[in-house]
Amino acid sequence: MGPQPAADERTGAPHVLIVGGGFGGLQAARTLAQHSLRITLLDRRNYHLFQPLLYQVATAALSPGDIAEPIRAILRRHRNVRVLLGEADAVDAANHRVVLSDGRVLGYDYLVLAPGSHHSYFGHDDWEPLAPGLKSVDDALDVRRRILLAFERAEWEADPATREALLTFVIVGGGPTGVELAGAIAEIARHTVARDFRDIDPRRARVLLLEGGPRVLATYPTDLSARAEQSLRALGVEVRTDTRVTAITPAAVHVGEEVIPTRTVLWAAGVAASPLGRSLRVPLDRMGRVPVEPDLSVPGHPEIFVVGDLASYTHQTNAPLPGVAQVAIQQGRAAAENIVRSLRGQPRQPFRYKDLGLMATIGREAAVAEIGRLHLSGLVAWLAWALVHIVNLVGFDNRVLVLWQWAWAYFTFRRGARLITGPVPVLTATANQ
Amino acid sequence: MGPQPAADERTGAPHVLIVGGGFGGLQAARTLAQHSLRITLLDRRNYHLFQPLLYQVATAALSPGDIAEPIRAILRRHRNVRVLLGEADAVDAANHRVVLSDGRVLGYDYLVLAPGSHHSYFGHDDWEPLAPGLKSVDDALDVRRRILLAFERAEWEADPATREALLTFVIVGGGPTGVELAGAIAEIARHTVARDFRDIDPRRARVLLLEGGPRVLATYPTDLSARAEQSLRALGVEVRTDTRVTAITPAAVHVGEEVIPTRTVLWAAGVAASPLGRSLRVPLDRMGRVPVEPDLSVPGHPEIFVVGDLASYTHQTNAPLPGVAQVAIQQGRAAAENIVRSLRGQPRQPFRYKDLGLMATIGREAAVAEIGRLHLSGLVAWLAWALVHIVNLVGFDNRVLVLWQWAWAYFTFRRGARLITGPVPVLTATANQ
Repeated sequence: MGPQPAADERTGAPHVLIVGGGFGGLQAARTLAQHSLRITLLDRRNYHLFQPLLYQVATAALSPGDIAEPIRAILRRHRNVRVLLGEADAVDAANHRVVLSDGRVLGYDYLVLAPGSHHSYFGHDDWEPLAPGLKSVDDALDVRRRILLAFERAEWEADPATREALLTFVIVGGGPTGVELAGAIAEIARHTVARDFRDIDPRRARVLLLEGGPRVLATYPTDLSARAEQSLRALGVEVRTDTRVTAITPAAVHVGEEVIPTRTVLWAAGVAASPLGRSLRVPLDRMGRVPVEPDLSVPGHPEIFVVGDLASYTHQTNAPLPGVAQVAIQQGRAAAENIVRSLRGQPRQPFRYKDLGLMATIGREAAVAEIGRLHLSGLVAWLAWALVHIVNLVGFDNRVLVLWQWAWAYFTFRRGARLITGPVPVLTATANQ
Repeated sequence: MGPQPAADERTGAPHVLIVGGGFGGLQAARTLAQHSLRITLLDRRNYHLFQPLLYQVATAALSPGDIAEPIRAILRRHRNVRVLLGEADAVDAANHRVVLSDGRVLGYDYLVLAPGSHHSYFGHDDWEPLAPGLKSVDDALDVRRRILLAFERAEWEADPATREALLTFVIVGGGPTGVELAGAIAEIARHTVARDFRDIDPRRARVLLLEGGPRVLATYPTDLSARAEQSLRALGVEVRTDTRVTAITPAAVHVGEEVIPTRTVLWAAGVAASPLGRSLRVPLDRMGRVPVEPDLSVPGHPEIFVVGDLASYTHQTNAPLPGVAQVAIQQGRAAAENIVRSLRGQPRQPFRYKDLGLMATIGREAAVAEIGRLHLSGLVAWLAWALVHIVNLVGFDNRVLVLWQWAWAYFTFRRGARLITGPVPVLTATANQ
């Protein structure tokens, strides 16, 4: 059985294949669905994830269902869109088809690649099991399990040094995810579980944020970086800049000569573009991204578009556009509109990114935001942040519900999703209790 | 390091060890916490689970965080209660201590055993991976994954016979859990995902409920059994009584000569008491339960109490009391009160179970309930059920939230927690698409 025909025999409509149901792919599908096209969206997960809030699941404030929604439910009303669960392995550009990991193939007339990115351990792939990153719901549940289990084990532990290591949390990477994780963990220790234990005082937990560069939030204006660092310190987070991790073991993080005993290391230091880009057989940039044309198409392949984290768009600014949701959303829409223009025989338009601002939140009372020329911090930034995030919960019925849960968590310091699920390894302790 | 001393040197207070943080253990802890005692609650999970609603997680109506709450958060205000994460392996009654799976030991003056029960496959333990049961949050997430993946795979599948097998759901066991699962799955197929797919029509999915005995809900009055069966049939469930499963394979369920091709089998047929009872070295009943004295203590061990699913209490009715939440709650309280009486030199009181009624729900519009002499069914029973369950969400801050989510799911037919998490095996299909 060969690939499916490029155009649907029933309708004669051209077939657009979209790989990835994140911000870029979903926006492309919604834009294309307005036209007489046959659209297939392929994703290896059945849900679209509101990734900016993933750290809230990892830190037990929200449940996975609050920030993820089945892709087919979001696209239900678009009858010309099919959603398929599966993993794209390679693009066979010469034959206009995509090969899946299980050997199946999907043909296309136009292809929109929006596969996103994954963690990069800068050549230290052996660190991955010791220092999980945060990309999927399963990652977030794993991180949540590790954080909560560290406190549980510390309560059992009689050896003071081991107990201290269990109550030391190290976050590697001072970008938005690292900053948000560090703030949230500090808040869990200082407030949420502060009175839940009898033999340990969670408020004495150490939270370290290690950043290789000279400041946290490197892509933000310097004044906001400084305020973020200040807010983190006020929460009790030890922020260390110009600090490069040289080794991670099950018992410690090494920073040059210094050894920091810890049992919980979280990775927020780097991402790498999807390996799908390599199969295009065009030159990639240093980060594995595809340098795209001004219309977002792949050089030499006007029928293939790349959007989001896999795209390197350098026609507007010197540096490639950052890997954030707004870039992916705007590119998804632009690629879809260029496909429609081509089918109508109109000239394509170059993509222009409209910067809507940056925002990061540090604990419950602090956030920093850059919205146009405005640099906000403190409660005003937090409220702006909450508003922007809730309004942007794409296709979610339960915006009111999520708002309520936040308000609840905000005013009570409680986190309702503190469940340890999945395999719990046998607790090993050095003493009976 | 030896076991911990039986009485706390600091306070001189006797030490009560409770094994299990379910309905019985939690109620015992709360009752004992009112007195000058030192209490330890041991559980292998960090959360208390509102088990009657677990099928709602398995069928994507609720998130795990809605029906589970950290045990230490529930008991936070009771400063004389310690909560420890660990698994009890055996009771060493001669030495007044409990041995944990990792070799640690916990001493006690009084012991309350409330470890609950697990699935029983009636000697067919090889069926377990093929037909998961529903006892923990992880079980529920596994069942949810299987149900949702079956629809995803059917959408890919080109072979009509395989597709039909993927769209056949078999529930083994017609007790409350089986009835509730069957009703909820039928509702997902007929309403929730009815319009989400393009190549399959989920409304044509078959849902079979196989019961070995002559009627569903065998422990309920016969008129309510009949109404439950009627409601299930109205939802499109094929109910088969006097039907015993003889084999389960990855591709089918066998009922004698008949072979029912299916890829999703769920087990709701039987439970067995915790194996912890065997270590007491007293005669157990046929189901592995401990026949307790009228005061809920173990024969020959007045310092050990057994409550909930592990207890066989035959001093009030001919048959042992059923394994439901109300029995466990009332026994947990009674055992705790008898411990307090003993410490005060007062005589113990025999346990009396006060039957508060039975209830089961079938889909969104139907339920059956027996409350005292009242036999309710239909919407009235559903409302009574919703009220009883929400009011009884022990220690949950978010009762209002859960009520809201239900109301939402009820009026919109939507299920907000339809996420496939955990390992997704590679989809195998017989054809390209």
